[in-house]
Amino acid sequence: MGSDMNETERQKIVIKLSGSVFNFNTQSVVLKEYADLFMSLNEKVQLIIITGGGKIARHYIELARALNGDEATLDTLGIDVSRINARLLLTAIGRLGYPQIPKSLDEVSMALEFNKIVVVGGLHPGQSTNATSALISEKIGANTFINATDVSGIYDKDPAVNSDAKMFTELSVGKCMELLGQKNSQAGTYELMDLVALKVIQRSRIRTIVMNSDINSLKDIILKGSNFGTRITF
Amino acid sequence: MGSDMNETERQKIVIKLSGSVFNFNTQSVVLKEYADLFMSLNEKVQLIIITGGGKIARHYIELARALNGDEATLDTLGIDVSRINARLLLTAIGRLGYPQIPKSLDEVSMALEFNKIVVVGGLHPGQSTNATSALISEKIGANTFINATDVSGIYDKDPAVNSDAKMFTELSVGKCMELLGQKNSQAGTYELMDLVALKVIQRSRIRTIVMNSDINSLKDIILKGSNFGTRITF
Amino acid sequence: MGSDMNETERQKIVIKLSGSVFNFNTQSVVLKEYADLFMSLNEKVQLIIITGGGKIARHYIELARALNGDEATLDTLGIDVSRINARLLLTAIGRLGYPQIPKSLDEVSMALEFNKIVVVGGLHPGQSTNATSALISEKIGANTFINATDVSGIYDKDPAVNSDAKMFTELSVGKCMELLGQKNSQAGTYELMDLVALKVIQRSRIRTIVMNSDINSLKDIILKGSNFGTRITF
Amino acid sequence: MGSDMNETERQKIVIKLSGSVFNFNTQSVVLKEYADLFMSLNEKVQLIIITGGGKIARHYIELARALNGDEATLDTLGIDVSRINARLLLTAIGRLGYPQIPKSLDEVSMALEFNKIVVVGGLHPGQSTNATSALISEKIGANTFINATDVSGIYDKDPAVNSDAKMFTELSVGKCMELLGQKNSQAGTYELMDLVALKVIQRSRIRTIVMNSDINSLKDIILKGSNFGTRITF
Amino acid sequence: MGSDMNETERQKIVIKLSGSVFNFNTQSVVLKEYADLFMSLNEKVQLIIITGGGKIARHYIELARALNGDEATLDTLGIDVSRINARLLLTAIGRLGYPQIPKSLDEVSMALEFNKIVVVGGLHPGQSTNATSALISEKIGANTFINATDVSGIYDKDPAVNSDAKMFTELSVGKCMELLGQKNSQAGTYELMDLVALKVIQRSRIRTIVMNSDINSLKDIILKGSNFGTRITF
Amino acid sequence: MGSDMNETERQKIVIKLSGSVFNFNTQSVVLKEYADLFMSLNEKVQLIIITGGGKIARHYIELARALNGDEATLDTLGIDVSRINARLLLTAIGRLGYPQIPKSLDEVSMALEFNKIVVVGGLHPGQSTNATSALISEKIGANTFINATDVSGIYDKDPAVNSDAKMFTELSVGKCMELLGQKNSQAGTYELMDLVALKVIQRSRIRTIVMNSDINSLKDIILKGSNFGTRITF
Repeated sequence: MGSDMNETERQKIVIKLSGSVFNFNTQSVVLKEYADLFMSLNEKVQLIIITGGGKIARHYIELARALNGDEATLDTLGIDVSRINARLLLTAIGRLGYPQIPKSLDEVSMALEFNKIVVVGGLHPGQSTNATSALISEKIGANTFINATDVSGIYDKDPAVNSDAKMFTELSVGKCMELLGQKNSQAGTYELMDLVALKVIQRSRIRTIVMNSDINSLKDIILKGSNFGTRITF
Repeated sequence: MGSDMNETERQKIVIKLSGSVFNFNTQSVVLKEYADLFMSLNEKVQLIIITGGGKIARHYIELARALNGDEATLDTLGIDVSRINARLLLTAIGRLGYPQIPKSLDEVSMALEFNKIVVVGGLHPGQSTNATSALISEKIGANTFINATDVSGIYDKDPAVNSDAKMFTELSVGKCMELLGQKNSQAGTYELMDLVALKVIQRSRIRTIVMNSDINSLKDIILKGSNFGTRITF
Repeated sequence: MGSDMNETERQKIVIKLSGSVFNFNTQSVVLKEYADLFMSLNEKVQLIIITGGGKIARHYIELARALNGDEATLDTLGIDVSRINARLLLTAIGRLGYPQIPKSLDEVSMALEFNKIVVVGGLHPGQSTNATSALISEKIGANTFINATDVSGIYDKDPAVNSDAKMFTELSVGKCMELLGQKNSQAGTYELMDLVALKVIQRSRIRTIVMNSDINSLKDIILKGSNFGTRITF
Repeated sequence: MGSDMNETERQKIVIKLSGSVFNFNTQSVVLKEYADLFMSLNEKVQLIIITGGGKIARHYIELARALNGDEATLDTLGIDVSRINARLLLTAIGRLGYPQIPKSLDEVSMALEFNKIVVVGGLHPGQSTNATSALISEKIGANTFINATDVSGIYDKDPAVNSDAKMFTELSVGKCMELLGQKNSQAGTYELMDLVALKVIQRSRIRTIVMNSDINSLKDIILKGSNFGTRITF
Repeated sequence: MGSDMNETERQKIVIKLSGSVFNFNTQSVVLKEYADLFMSLNEKVQLIIITGGGKIARHYIELARALNGDEATLDTLGIDVSRINARLLLTAIGRLGYPQIPKSLDEVSMALEFNKIVVVGGLHPGQSTNATSALISEKIGANTFINATDVSGIYDKDPAVNSDAKMFTELSVGKCMELLGQKNSQAGTYELMDLVALKVIQRSRIRTIVMNSDINSLKDIILKGSNFGTRITF
Repeated sequence: MGSDMNETERQKIVIKLSGSVFNFNTQSVVLKEYADLFMSLNEKVQLIIITGGGKIARHYIELARALNGDEATLDTLGIDVSRINARLLLTAIGRLGYPQIPKSLDEVSMALEFNKIVVVGGLHPGQSTNATSALISEKIGANTFINATDVSGIYDKDPAVNSDAKMFTELSVGKCMELLGQKNSQAGTYELMDLVALKVIQRSRIRTIVMNSDINSLKDIILKGSNFGTRITF
């Protein structure tokens, strides 16, 4: 399994990849671009990608809610779709990817032994993929956790409805909790970073960046070290 | 559980429910109607429903194929979606349903011990949900296997392109194989009844009906004993 | 599996039993008393008991923290001990208990099919046993969730240090979140009701009581319907 | 896990080893010879060996059929015996073999990560070991699939009953299907290459050779590149 | 399930059925007779049958030993064959049997919840099927453990070589240990009752009978309460 | 992974580490010392450490016995605690340890593929951790099995009660069995080396040393090759 020296040298980066990348009209070329970026990094960086559920997840969750499904079942549907998204991305990555989709923190730990790109969906009901990503970052001692989401960073107001919303380049985790405290936690609901994720980031002081998931921003931040999005401070 | 007398009395009906029932624009009320039909039957009949993958499955399969995924991975994506569809239907059925989605023939056997409606998706790569349904029918000794599909039955030509296509009310399993012999077996491809399914039906002489999956036809055939679709003969 | 009528009639009560019941100096007679209470209820009530980890869990967690274990490992040690506590209680319950300790929400659902007392420990790292109990309550549609803890209810200040602390008989879930917002979330830390638990209780409006875990209070509230502790309102 | 360069260089050969190699009167020296051949190849070739069930499988299948077992149970008995044969061969291979018998395509993929000889039995009821071998070949992108069977290749008639039967050195997959179309599919029945196997070979254009399983022929074809048996063409 | 009253009333009998019942030349009618006997008892008695491996197990074990397999692998081969024998007997029992072969003590406990005949093979390497049977007897609180073996009971000398060997009708467990103390424990070796089995019988004072496995003796002892074989005393 | 040459060169040492190392008052620095010793050996030696249950195991076992738990449940509680101890030691070892606690011999074999320190607790009810350690030694072909226990070696009498007890520096396995023959086998009872362990050691002639588990003795014997404790001879 390579030398241990090698293992300790490789940086570990956890990327939560927004479910919006996987959609009813997603093009395979876009997925290929993400895969190519990740594959080009594999020599130097241990990557763990967590894929969100996106609109297909929400499609199932809404149907299940209309059928009076309990929230845990709704979560499970979201997790199931996020795992399909994970498998799709893994297909694009091919032989440089760890060949299974881990289903628990323990399986993520095992997967790291293989020095390949690890792709994960959600893990358990009651845990958003953001929280899962934070827990994985904590478990494996990630150097950086990139939350690649649908907006460019964390804003003081919802940028979708407020034209004067201002994005923070830095934001303390405490401030972050305040801003997000009022959101509710129905399965599949829009949430930049939920409270569990923030608490985990806080307790283990995980270096965290919230940024846009578009491929060019990701390339710039990872390959060129550009500054993007909102950095969470402690 | 209950008494064994009870068990031997209840007929066992396996229904393969077309993936087209589960779609991007599926309405929850439609799923509720299917669920209500199945729930109304549970007292008298042991139902095993196998859900197909439908268009969402094909969406993922096409993306994976464009990304050079192997056929087994394509099959797996289809199975994963079919299991999500199964869970969605199970949600509509609620407490009358067996609470898990079985993932192997063995788990289907176990599920039958609970006298509840069993909902299953695909089982293994390399096996269509039709073949899976036939194998389940064989394994549990089903009294009838209803293949509820997108057309009204088996035609002498493809009814979608030939306006003069004629539907058979009865068709021998041998004739059926001949008609379908030329189809190819790429994952997710349209196939009324693939050859594995037909061979299983043949070797265990399973009473099989190919018919339309619309709710009214299903109600009529199950509740009123109407004649529908194509009956396969031996 | 009894009749479905029976199933719908039996109330479902989820009891989180404080880890303090299971301790270095716990007497078997005390466990027997809890077991006897639960066994006496089994005819009328579907009970799901979630056992905490208690001091033995904290013993392991502190050692692991001193050894630089990551938080997920610390959580796992706590879960492992809580499951041993669950097995011990199950031993006292004997044949009226479901013979396994479920390890996921799905397994809890399965366990309910057997009409026996279900005993569970923690489920996943990153989830307190309180949060787990709330998620189980939600998943199974519990009629009541009793959080049997080390204090008599929720106070305006910490009763251990403030002699003038006042217990609420009722407290809105929002107020509850405010009171507990400032607590941190290190594994094994004292927390009456963490935020995940409260969010779950809120989103599914679960009838919740926080009370002391002593056997007499439990008997009174369950057998006589006495009022105890703090009721969470919406 | 070695370098990726290494992985991409090593050819992948899938060998279906006839169940007739494992028999009531099989000598350990014969198994040792096969093991030695496979071990000598491990440096240059990634080998995946699928072992058939043979006469011991048929012994159990016949008893089970006489006891009215369903076909899936019969298949399962055959799979169980083929896995015991796999473990026996693995024992002969020793530390150069992957230490477990994979039970699904996913487990086969994982096993390949270890650069050892992978030995597999059957995988699922309703799937012959030939079909399983073809599916494995497809899943892992095998360079060659050798079906080492009881006859020297594919004949125009059954060579056991027709002294004038002629072996094909090449045969198109379509022709092959025609020849085998009439065979039935009872569990354990003699079948050179069943239709599922052929369809898989066809859809993924897998280079396939049907030949005799005797150790000398295998040595010649693998070590010397001799021509043997029947090559399937597209 | 059913009523608990029912459960406590039914006697639990564990029968270790000699592997010699399952052999190269076993007739299906013989298996049917055993199955019929067990099925006729199911109303009144909870039966757990543990099947031995017999000559087919020894065939594989000898081959593996000649190939330098470690003892644990040899044990595993024996267990695998004993489980195939279990599945074969289960096939003969049909719907009155629990549909799976339990693979651990925990699974045996679960199986008992279904009020069906439970058929088990070996469980773990390093544990003979005799020891397994004793452990199962202990775990479930069996009323009687019948060790149906190849000889009529326990003799003072090996009856196969000593024509004057005398069978005990009763034998203390201590005496029994002395008699068997000198036997070695190579996998698959002939052993009436190994030391682990005897220690378990002793510590839990399990009522144990060692007798011949022929169908008529079994019928007489179970149906008529005849005295047979050797009863172990404490 | 790595080269096979490497694998065959590394000695394999199995150490059963007494449960007394893990206790109510265990200090993390002590565990760190053990971990440091094991980590310093990893380059040259393949270590497999089996941790006992110790006093916390006995605490649970005694409570369960007082609650009329069956012996298998008592064993399971002991195994559960031994696995928590294993995880704690693994935490101290960190990234040089195999990241999971194997739960069967098969999983131990898999774990060895990773060239890391493998930490294991108990495996199955009915098997002491001593017997488990011997079986693991046998399965993997260990060069040495060190039973690091609470006394300095095997004595002719119990040294705790007899001041004139004499320790053997060498003892034949047969003699060893005689000495230990009279001990009983209740779960958690004090036993230097139980009979199953001894039989396994005997049948596979495993080089075995019984010695004190204190860190200095272990260092001396492993690092300096000092003579300690009792060597078992054949």
